Amino acid sequence: MDIGSVNSLPYEDFVDVFGNVVEKCPLITAAVWSRRPFSSLADLEASINDFIDALPESGKEGILRVHPDLAGRDLQSGTLTRESREEQGQAGLDTLTTAEVSRMTRLNTEYKDHFGFPFVICARKNNKATILRQLEERLRNERTIERACAIDEVKKICHLRLQRLVVPEMSNKL
Amino acid sequence: MDIGSVNSLPYEDFVDVFGNVVEKCPLITAAVWSRRPFSSLADLEASINDFIDALPESGKEGILRVHPDLAGRDLQSGTLTRESREEQGQAGLDTLTTAEVSRMTRLNTEYKDHFGFPFVICARKNNKATILRQLEERLRNERTIERACAIDEVKKICHLRLQRLVVPEMSNKL
Repeated sequence: MDIGSVNSLPYEDFVDVFGNVVEKCPLITAAVWSRRPFSSLADLEASINDFIDALPESGKEGILRVHPDLAGRDLQSGTLTRESREEQGQAGLDTLTTAEVSRMTRLNTEYKDHFGFPFVICARKNNKATILRQLEERLRNERTIERACAIDEVKKICHLRLQRLVVPEMSNKL
Repeated sequence: MDIGSVNSLPYEDFVDVFGNVVEKCPLITAAVWSRRPFSSLADLEASINDFIDALPESGKEGILRVHPDLAGRDLQSGTLTRESREEQGQAGLDTLTTAEVSRMTRLNTEYKDHFGFPFVICARKNNKATILRQLEERLRNERTIERACAIDEVKKICHLRLQRLVVPEMSNKL
């Protein structure tokens, strides 16, 4: 799908296609439809990022809180979104050893108890080793720094999800 | 569930319980968790309304755009959220005559083409006759007025959904 086709979508189809580029936040996709026409994929992505940046800090934490844990209950129970399942799978999080699952669960819990939102990282740009290392490192961040860091990861995830939907040569969905 | 129990919920449980008080906008619920402790149900509701009011106009339109049509494709195909299904059913929208469905579809389409978001109304406070009448009337509103009117309806829906979840004497869910 090219950007011209994107711009011609009624809002319902736009939300159907792009509703999960920010995990479980179709509100954001539905909001940026107001900004059409987009001159390019980069323009659509910038509109999404601008919307996120303009949210109050509680809104940014809200975005993080609807993200699933990595290698957590949604992966175990099969209730991840399609996109998250593919991303966690590609990073090897669906083939962890029992010891690795225990370590991930312990660190995720510690992180959530500390920050009040889950650890979010762009799984496609990492593997289980780098994810575990970053989880340990980011646990030591100051809260404001860590929230910004996590939102940057949300944007990286969004960037890759958009690329799979819009740029024809990279698309495998439309 | 009383407000003390609500305040003790981890964010994951809070989002599980209240994630759809604003239709398909768990981001909002997840955001207001930051405002705990709530002194009362009214305080929780005010936090949600404050968050909505602070959104840019595009964000308010985004909330509207993730709402289903009344007596529309999601009702026909069984893909409404549980809450919407109950509300549309109570208003009699699942037992429309063929002529009524045609009229509703025509007016919904006209409304969406005109405003770029769907007609939202608190179905529990209406019936099919008042819904059709208001749909025709609100179609004539100026855009800014109508967006504010629709957001007021979102808040009425949220109010009733919250009352079913929190106030013990009215609860039938928890």
